[in-house]
Amino acid sequence: MVDFKLYTPTEVVFGKDSEAQLIPLIRKYGGTKVLIHYGGGSVLRSGLLLKVKDALTEAGIPFVELGGVVPNPRLSLARKGIALCREKGVDLILAVGGGSVIDSAKVIGYGLKYDGDVWDIYDGKYKPEGSAPVGVILTIPASGSEMSDSAVITKDEGMIKRGYNSDWCRPKFAIMNPERTYTLPAYQTAAGVTDIMMHTMERYFSHDDDMLLTDAIAEALMRTVKECGEKLLKDPENYQLRAQIMWAGSLAHNNLTGCGTTSDFATHRIEHELSSTYNATHGAGLAAIWPHWAKYVLSESPGRFAQFAVNVVGVPNDFKSAEKTALAGIEAMVDFYHRIGMPTSIPELIGRPATEEEIAEMAFKATRSRTVTLGRMKVLDYDDVVEIYRLSNV
Amino acid sequence: MVDFKLYTPTEVVFGKDSEAQLIPLIRKYGGTKVLIHYGGGSVLRSGLLLKVKDALTEAGIPFVELGGVVPNPRLSLARKGIALCREKGVDLILAVGGGSVIDSAKVIGYGLKYDGDVWDIYDGKYKPEGSAPVGVILTIPASGSEMSDSAVITKDEGMIKRGYNSDWCRPKFAIMNPERTYTLPAYQTAAGVTDIMMHTMERYFSHDDDMLLTDAIAEALMRTVKECGEKLLKDPENYQLRAQIMWAGSLAHNNLTGCGTTSDFATHRIEHELSSTYNATHGAGLAAIWPHWAKYVLSESPGRFAQFAVNVVGVPNDFKSAEKTALAGIEAMVDFYHRIGMPTSIPELIGRPATEEEIAEMAFKATRSRTVTLGRMKVLDYDDVVEIYRLSNV
Repeated sequence: MVDFKLYTPTEVVFGKDSEAQLIPLIRKYGGTKVLIHYGGGSVLRSGLLLKVKDALTEAGIPFVELGGVVPNPRLSLARKGIALCREKGVDLILAVGGGSVIDSAKVIGYGLKYDGDVWDIYDGKYKPEGSAPVGVILTIPASGSEMSDSAVITKDEGMIKRGYNSDWCRPKFAIMNPERTYTLPAYQTAAGVTDIMMHTMERYFSHDDDMLLTDAIAEALMRTVKECGEKLLKDPENYQLRAQIMWAGSLAHNNLTGCGTTSDFATHRIEHELSSTYNATHGAGLAAIWPHWAKYVLSESPGRFAQFAVNVVGVPNDFKSAEKTALAGIEAMVDFYHRIGMPTSIPELIGRPATEEEIAEMAFKATRSRTVTLGRMKVLDYDDVVEIYRLSNV
Repeated sequence: MVDFKLYTPTEVVFGKDSEAQLIPLIRKYGGTKVLIHYGGGSVLRSGLLLKVKDALTEAGIPFVELGGVVPNPRLSLARKGIALCREKGVDLILAVGGGSVIDSAKVIGYGLKYDGDVWDIYDGKYKPEGSAPVGVILTIPASGSEMSDSAVITKDEGMIKRGYNSDWCRPKFAIMNPERTYTLPAYQTAAGVTDIMMHTMERYFSHDDDMLLTDAIAEALMRTVKECGEKLLKDPENYQLRAQIMWAGSLAHNNLTGCGTTSDFATHRIEHELSSTYNATHGAGLAAIWPHWAKYVLSESPGRFAQFAVNVVGVPNDFKSAEKTALAGIEAMVDFYHRIGMPTSIPELIGRPATEEEIAEMAFKATRSRTVTLGRMKVLDYDDVVEIYRLSNV
């Protein structure tokens, strides 16, 4: 195990009556003028947006709105949000939606505490020293952004997708009502389940660092998400199941499941280029990459993959061969992805194979023009990343 | 499951090099004049106190000291601390020690934000509206006070032991170096292990509310603590084992393992009177009470006790009888307590049976002069509490 820090200051209010806490929470965290930030259709259709506006109006808290956040949220809209907040004197950003909306809100939060261009943070030119407070009403469990220190944004020119992590952007509060997720389409539910599991899988597949308690908690979480995720697709309005997935989404990425481990986020980094290049759903892209990454790096730590296979995926242990157990676990995950309707290859994800030019371009971007390596279990350079895209391309 | 809130703002820095973060953390949380609060011998003997003072001196941060915190910490010393901090202009309290020191520091923190007598909070006469910031260097894993919202204090006159919970008192930071716990005596280590398990057991034994993910995490934690705790007594300088216990201590009581459950803290309440009456070690007192509480309430939910027996204690499931499985689990816990050197009855705890007068007095205090009931799985009144003391008294 390695030394670690855990800092999870987000005040979580969870359950059927959680939305009633909105106004007290806004007041507690200093919101006197609020930006309501959201995506599109679903929060309008469900009536949630109207409910939020009514609550603010009734409480006498002035607000402005900015909708239109898209999956793989764009820098252009965040810049617009920063300008709007400055103009109107907004002091708290309320994200109503899923990971894209929250990440966009976080970027606006950074921007309000920086006089330069907020992309400087993503370009390594500026290290943020603060953020305007961000609150969340979560409607899509997947990204874990409601408690995480991460904000991923895509620069429109060239579709450059980048993440930045700092404690400044951790939301002040997160309101989570599982009932709000009943109407999520099956594909989005499954992509969320995949993303949630992956956030903990990428912390779990550390090479030789592990911590018993963290492993036990991580395995408990992954097992629960896998079991409930599959059941949920046949029973989408089951409160218990929706609640497990929603809460797991936060715990999977607030670093609880990474305490004492080194983690390996190569799959996420490799996937980011897929979703930004093809505008694919991030969770689906993860399912298309992970099995190929896993087979590619398996020989680095067959025992770890075997532990995952037995303790999480539930395959029988082949005591004669950790590698065989490990491979059976990866195959069982492929079956699981298929059962929940996720692709496990690039052609399944985008409807055709990627071209060699696209693969080269994605690998070039993922390694930041061949200047960085990815991952830790096996350190991946440009050629490795190309190979993993190719393995997923058949 | 029930609606829940989780608020764990404490910044945890964990590991061998964690103490190096002390000065940055004090500065981050606004400490310009510090009270170093501690107990007695061990932090002096280990050199930790000297190290802390040297670090503060070198950083140019002025400080005052107040040692002498005893187990079941006393209101009188906390009052002295409040007066000292007022006189010297202290703005951050640094607790160096275990649960007693941290709780005493929290009471001082409350007192600095209240003009009246701090006992008013424990007497129900005043609801705190703030606290001076408290930081922690943890040396005894057990109470979980380093992340919890709880502060227990004993009023010297009449040895009245009371707890109060509010988010105000959650520590701003907690520095945890497992190496600092190598020299803990076996009895104290075992009492800590018992207390840690109990914090999660009391959240786990909810009547009919449960949450799959919380159960899975709670079971993972209890299993890990039980296994590592027993191993530790034969291998007290094993970093991995010490680290699991130390981290579990925080997670067991920051409410992670109670999300969505109702919890039943009757055992803690019944024990508090034991430790304050006989000045016994709190964790040891819990072991002396729990098996008797468990048998007394078992019929309310045999299935839940059977789940604990199989998933945590590792006894085989008797599929014909949840009650038999449950009882086997309780007996296995009794064996476990004995193996780690914990008492499982009042005579084992204090060296003689309690008198009937003492039992009546303790039950009277535990039910606040017969005005309150304890617990939820089975609601316990004065007569029930008397009966549980008697069951433990043979």
